[in-house]
Amino acid sequence: MVATLKFTTLLLAVVVCRATQDYGYKDVEEPTLGDSQYGSLWPLPQKVQMSTVAFKLSGVSFQIVDAKESSSGASCSLLQNAYRRYDEYIFPISRMQGQNKKKAFASDVSELQVWITSADSECDSYPSVTSDESYELSVDSPVAVLKAPKVWGALRGLETFSQLVYEDEYGAKSINRTEIQDFPRFTHRGLLLDSSRHFLPIKVILANLEAMAWNKFNVFHWHIVDDPSFPYMSRTFPQLSQQGAYHPYTHVYTPSDVKMIIEFARLRGIRVVSEFDTPGHTQSWGKGQKDLLTPCYSGASPSGSFGPVNPILNTTYDFMAMFFKEVSTVFPDAYIHLGGDEVDFSCWKSNPDIQKFMVQQGFGTDYSKLESFYIQRLLDIVTTTNKGYMIWQEVIDNGVKLKADTLIHVWKGNQQQYQAEMARVTASGYQALLSTPWYLNRISYGQDWQAAYKADPQDFNGTDAQKKLVVGGEACLWGEYVDATNLTPRLWPRASAVGERLWSDKDVKDTNDAYSRLIQHRCRMVQRGIPAEPLFTGYCAHEYKGV
Amino acid sequence: MVATLKFTTLLLAVVVCRATQDYGYKDVEEPTLGDSQYGSLWPLPQKVQMSTVAFKLSGVSFQIVDAKESSSGASCSLLQNAYRRYDEYIFPISRMQGQNKKKAFASDVSELQVWITSADSECDSYPSVTSDESYELSVDSPVAVLKAPKVWGALRGLETFSQLVYEDEYGAKSINRTEIQDFPRFTHRGLLLDSSRHFLPIKVILANLEAMAWNKFNVFHWHIVDDPSFPYMSRTFPQLSQQGAYHPYTHVYTPSDVKMIIEFARLRGIRVVSEFDTPGHTQSWGKGQKDLLTPCYSGASPSGSFGPVNPILNTTYDFMAMFFKEVSTVFPDAYIHLGGDEVDFSCWKSNPDIQKFMVQQGFGTDYSKLESFYIQRLLDIVTTTNKGYMIWQEVIDNGVKLKADTLIHVWKGNQQQYQAEMARVTASGYQALLSTPWYLNRISYGQDWQAAYKADPQDFNGTDAQKKLVVGGEACLWGEYVDATNLTPRLWPRASAVGERLWSDKDVKDTNDAYSRLIQHRCRMVQRGIPAEPLFTGYCAHEYKGV
Repeated sequence: MVATLKFTTLLLAVVVCRATQDYGYKDVEEPTLGDSQYGSLWPLPQKVQMSTVAFKLSGVSFQIVDAKESSSGASCSLLQNAYRRYDEYIFPISRMQGQNKKKAFASDVSELQVWITSADSECDSYPSVTSDESYELSVDSPVAVLKAPKVWGALRGLETFSQLVYEDEYGAKSINRTEIQDFPRFTHRGLLLDSSRHFLPIKVILANLEAMAWNKFNVFHWHIVDDPSFPYMSRTFPQLSQQGAYHPYTHVYTPSDVKMIIEFARLRGIRVVSEFDTPGHTQSWGKGQKDLLTPCYSGASPSGSFGPVNPILNTTYDFMAMFFKEVSTVFPDAYIHLGGDEVDFSCWKSNPDIQKFMVQQGFGTDYSKLESFYIQRLLDIVTTTNKGYMIWQEVIDNGVKLKADTLIHVWKGNQQQYQAEMARVTASGYQALLSTPWYLNRISYGQDWQAAYKADPQDFNGTDAQKKLVVGGEACLWGEYVDATNLTPRLWPRASAVGERLWSDKDVKDTNDAYSRLIQHRCRMVQRGIPAEPLFTGYCAHEYKGV
Repeated sequence: MVATLKFTTLLLAVVVCRATQDYGYKDVEEPTLGDSQYGSLWPLPQKVQMSTVAFKLSGVSFQIVDAKESSSGASCSLLQNAYRRYDEYIFPISRMQGQNKKKAFASDVSELQVWITSADSECDSYPSVTSDESYELSVDSPVAVLKAPKVWGALRGLETFSQLVYEDEYGAKSINRTEIQDFPRFTHRGLLLDSSRHFLPIKVILANLEAMAWNKFNVFHWHIVDDPSFPYMSRTFPQLSQQGAYHPYTHVYTPSDVKMIIEFARLRGIRVVSEFDTPGHTQSWGKGQKDLLTPCYSGASPSGSFGPVNPILNTTYDFMAMFFKEVSTVFPDAYIHLGGDEVDFSCWKSNPDIQKFMVQQGFGTDYSKLESFYIQRLLDIVTTTNKGYMIWQEVIDNGVKLKADTLIHVWKGNQQQYQAEMARVTASGYQALLSTPWYLNRISYGQDWQAAYKADPQDFNGTDAQKKLVVGGEACLWGEYVDATNLTPRLWPRASAVGERLWSDKDVKDTNDAYSRLIQHRCRMVQRGIPAEPLFTGYCAHEYKGV
């Protein structure tokens, strides 16, 4: 027998009343709350057909297994780990002991069969910008089937399956008959964390990688070093973190830390793209690497302070060659982010050796030419490592010649300005990545997830060919005001808005429907142990247990 | 031998460089960072004389003890608990086993003697608005002495003593020769938490009471119920929380929960002032108490929705008399906050019975007269319980007759408006409490603690007599956007700014000096287990260990 139940999750509930508030003003329109026909799905899959026919999942007998036909089996620890993880998400209270006879009722879904359909599952590979993340999920009784060409799609489908499970009014795990075909709208769905302005303990990074997977993000952009500190422990230049980290032992990432983070991310289909930003944002590099930075002058003598990387010394490029050779082996991803933003010319201008060099090179007083000179040589160095590169928009604004497959990362300006920049970048034939509307370090009172949700990276004047050059976007959480104490609740569920924008169809933009699903999604994140902050007045059935 | 050391704490450090930032704008001026001559003291005591002569505290032999002359002894568990607490703060790593011979070197401070000087220590009392919180602290070798007329001052002095302890470069606990005379500028230094818009687990409330004590707050204003939910479990009317809480078991405060919170607060010298806001903000009350709220009309028939408390029924006042009789026994504090804010007249206006009553009473169409009618009767009821009351400013704005000892809580408007209100309230001879500039639920990007720090409750046009009627202020964290996931880091150290404003001398307003001390104070809070968020780029030696 098949029970017919209205699809509502009992995981959580929310107060519908919109009471007057004690401060007498509102910053944004509040969405109205109703049940979404899509339950708690987040981000919304491309195609969903959901029936009202409900099945049960038995805590004794339900299991996630490899389909017989699957090209992947017990040796694929990526999938086996994922099965265990999702089993725990679905049955967070310890599973009942499996008894000898596992009874499966006709109205049960007794198995989720995971079927990798292509010959190479890519189980032991690293995810890449071309990874196939598509999947098809068919939930029926007695068996649900998740088909995906590669493990990456299977990971996404497992998350979706877990989001379909809800508790009926007796607390029984239930799931409705459902057909889903799904794939991402954009191939690059990133999150930037900044471990330089504040050191982020490994635990914090791992927890946020986990939350990224729940939101179908696939790139961790690790802004690992910057002016304030250099926590990356380099094998080749250990003095960089010894001198440049906040503390040489407690505030560094050792090679094995980095390895662990990369593997943890890989198991969730997440790439780790490291950023080593030069020639600006390098104050901390200078502490451990003599003569790397430009000595600034006050009148005729050095002032004692230092500016950007010194672009006129051969030793600079020798250092960069060795350093990026190491980085290219430590980080397996095909891309490195080279930064290139916000180069302050005042120190270069003050330095007589630099002035002389400008004259020799015929740069006149145009210091952006000197910047381009540096970047060009750096790109040549990185090219020898066979890596592609991502750079902040200033580099192309300054006219540096770039490889055709370079990713331009747009971050500046207001809406009009960033849309013009997206148009310019793609008109030049480069691939573009948008972050401007997703600087989540910026906070304001009220439901600011909506502004993030409404932005669209393809929303600019351009041809279809230009639009296709948009590979995605990144939510950025710069580190001035966040560390382990407040990063996670400040990021989630605000970043979830970006997650859906980058995964779901471009026509998925009903804020009311999103609000209903996101409220449930955030309670799910809380139940899974991530302190995602509330969107508005209300409650979760399982509140956060920490402080 | 006495070692002479520069007074610097090694608990933490902060990056001084002010690098250009990746978003290219700043909202507020950033204070500059230098060492404060007052170390990490927060809030700054009224009088501090600190020498550069440093002593050591031995992890084996140091102890906090009752002075022989003290009127308080081993039977005072409030102080004994405080000794244990501060011992653990000073020596967070487990104390070394006390050996038979406790060697004390001449350069040690071997004891802190706590001396309650008045005959009645008030050890077993509840703190009140007239409690004496003054103390004198003399740190010398071999003995430091903390003198206070009452236990309340001793609690404040113990916190100050713990803030004087720092680690020297070898990690040894050290303290400088110091003389402090201290007392609060204002007697009411409150923090409002809202457990109705989101339920706050006991654990979260206790953690924040602990942090309040570190910041010398002395009033927990518990906005316990409101429109969205009614988590207070009433013995007399159990259906209020059974029907009105988010969940009748998991989202309520039982009588023993409330008792525990009150005792935990008392042990830290903190009053618990409960707020049961009427006649508005009462939607959740209506679920469990039939006929309490006004039925709203749509044309000639009831619309099915309800407005404020129904002021024309005798049953309303019977209910309120019984309810507040209970509340007055459950909460021992001499004051109850009665709310009275934001009464919406539209429902009253729609109701024909109310219209008739208005005519009978000769109120015309002035519904503020009806509001006053209700409040007046409520105040009469509460007066019979021998409690004083606090009310939001609207009540006096509407001209309700109040007892002379009523506290008017100012919360509305911009700076000009709230200053005018403070002047009006005190000119009428009432005591005033300020909250407008301290609505910490409002957040903005950057260092917004500074705005809170700069506000002063006595900063308005008025006579000295008027200024004396200002009893203090309260930081408010309304609950629309906070729950257990994000409340604590959002509150601290921003509320610390309010803490210093209300405790320290009015001339303590150097933002740079405050910045230096507050950065250290926040790292201390982190080390003691509270996830207080960072003020800016930098680090703590002991980072937060949670997620």
